[in-house]
Amino acid sequence: MSEPRRIAVGSGDDAGVLWIGTGLLSDAARYLVSPSGRFLLVSSAGARGPADRIRRVLAGRVLADIEIDDREEAKNLDTVSRIADAAIEAGVRRDDALVAVGGGVVSDVAGFAAAILLRGIAWNAIPTTTGAMADAAIGGKTGVDHASGKNLLGAFHPPRAIVVDPEAAATLPDRDFRAGLVEAFKTAWIGDADLAGRAEGALERILRREEAALLDLLAGSARVKAEIVSEDPEEGDRRRLLNLGHTLGHAFEAAGGYRRLRHGEAVAWGIAAALEVSRERAGLPDADAARVRGVLRLLGPFPEPERDAAALGPSLSRDKKGTSRGTAGILLAAIGRGLIVDAIPLEEWLAAAARVTL
Amino acid sequence: MSEPRRIAVGSGDDAGVLWIGTGLLSDAARYLVSPSGRFLLVSSAGARGPADRIRRVLAGRVLADIEIDDREEAKNLDTVSRIADAAIEAGVRRDDALVAVGGGVVSDVAGFAAAILLRGIAWNAIPTTTGAMADAAIGGKTGVDHASGKNLLGAFHPPRAIVVDPEAAATLPDRDFRAGLVEAFKTAWIGDADLAGRAEGALERILRREEAALLDLLAGSARVKAEIVSEDPEEGDRRRLLNLGHTLGHAFEAAGGYRRLRHGEAVAWGIAAALEVSRERAGLPDADAARVRGVLRLLGPFPEPERDAAALGPSLSRDKKGTSRGTAGILLAAIGRGLIVDAIPLEEWLAAAARVTL
Repeated sequence: MSEPRRIAVGSGDDAGVLWIGTGLLSDAARYLVSPSGRFLLVSSAGARGPADRIRRVLAGRVLADIEIDDREEAKNLDTVSRIADAAIEAGVRRDDALVAVGGGVVSDVAGFAAAILLRGIAWNAIPTTTGAMADAAIGGKTGVDHASGKNLLGAFHPPRAIVVDPEAAATLPDRDFRAGLVEAFKTAWIGDADLAGRAEGALERILRREEAALLDLLAGSARVKAEIVSEDPEEGDRRRLLNLGHTLGHAFEAAGGYRRLRHGEAVAWGIAAALEVSRERAGLPDADAARVRGVLRLLGPFPEPERDAAALGPSLSRDKKGTSRGTAGILLAAIGRGLIVDAIPLEEWLAAAARVTL
Repeated sequence: MSEPRRIAVGSGDDAGVLWIGTGLLSDAARYLVSPSGRFLLVSSAGARGPADRIRRVLAGRVLADIEIDDREEAKNLDTVSRIADAAIEAGVRRDDALVAVGGGVVSDVAGFAAAILLRGIAWNAIPTTTGAMADAAIGGKTGVDHASGKNLLGAFHPPRAIVVDPEAAATLPDRDFRAGLVEAFKTAWIGDADLAGRAEGALERILRREEAALLDLLAGSARVKAEIVSEDPEEGDRRRLLNLGHTLGHAFEAAGGYRRLRHGEAVAWGIAAALEVSRERAGLPDADAARVRGVLRLLGPFPEPERDAAALGPSLSRDKKGTSRGTAGILLAAIGRGLIVDAIPLEEWLAAAARVTL
């Protein structure tokens, strides 16, 4: 086991630590935080291997052991309610903590349950997918979906500890592995040109899951995201950069009924569409657009998105990042430099969605 | 209309303002806060008069008009979900705000809906009961009940504006009017001996709903509560003082199935029981205990609580204020001076509950 890297996330009441290193799972008890020493374990069937390792390292300290469904369909208030029921039934107290083992759905739902249980208990994230390692578990956005759109109900409630062990994703199907990496590259593209360049050069090794290359990308994007959310915990302008590709991405996902496209795949299409808008409105050089597009192509091929304006419109107009002034535009001015342009007309996104290719 | 008093509550992101004065409802548009200028109106059938006045002053700016049940049984995630559905259906955005018109159940549930909608939108409280004016609407505790106990799910999410107009409680039944005043006196007893003395002397006029006397008590207790929550927004020790009478109070309420006793009545019994424990453990002078008891008697008579240990125990042991170290004790050292004693044995509360009289 290599020495883990330690990345501070947030500050004050929101402070947490992300630990990243191969083999960390076996030693997770050293990193997980619980004021009382007791834990509520929330995991998914898809993460049973890593969850079993956590059961072993926390033996005798698990107050309740709750398995939830990790599909987007289960990301709702009912699942939160089920976690709360089990926790309260088990006698949860304010100084107990939750630990979520799984992909983004698990950390979003379980983190939200932690946010509202007794008005907030501490929680820890052990992401088991590349998407959750790069993105979902970092930064404190928790929540559930609503029939009308993703993440419409939720809370900012950052985990106290995030333990990232790439071994936890060892059995992840290739399609999910690749889709999750879109989020890691996205973070590099908005905030770290060096990282983006290195990861682009190492892409084949990353896709072969070579430890050093994968760790470099995941740790690098975690560091960039941690810096951004530490500066801007509740999503003012800086943090909104992390939503590159997500305005259309969420619409693509919703239009496909959350079945056609993985989240990362929808975001990849959303980024590709944002490249067009970015050339128009943010002066993104053609060469940079081509490099981003090249990486997305190698992470794919991804299933074609739904492009119909009638299917995309409702979700776009309800985008949380919008205000009554219009839909927000998260664009790229260059690789490593995201840019926010307020109030982009809906029609412009719909036109980009209709044209986008990868 | 007299000039309203302005009381600052909280600071930084949690900053809000409480306005108190007779006739304020007609002028509420001046005080309610919404970044977009648009409002979601949440009210209860019991507050239809005040809600109609708010509909008039906000005419043309109400995005959705949602009536909810204001009984304790309706204080659950389903009601939150119903508010969220209506809000999302109406196209709520992050810069819209909610306004809750009603008693404590309405502000607790609607405030919680505001806390989780789009991960948090602004909200305003217009309390229409003495209990909500004195207590529920101030300080940012929002939430819903769980089958196992009150307020087990929730968030700290303070309203941006609280508009207290005693006229809003004009048609409140006498039993509710009196029960709500228990919370106002409670706040005086833990933190302001002068206010407690004045209100005790004015009790008959307060019970006749004389404007000056009632405003003095409500504004005074709001000021004391605002000071406490501003110092300690997320319930460290200082804020826990506000829970005087609530540890047993919640147990009395739950044991009566939330039907036998009003919240304030249960708290009155809880305070009376805490007087006994306070004489033993906090040196409360007999004369002060007798004065508190005298006020509670005049606010009553209240229905007898359930005293059986088997009925009270489960709820007591799940009290949110407890930690794995024991049940917290909020006691009185003197009128105007609350005191926290950690880890009081459950048995001691149960014994006090068995003996308590008013």
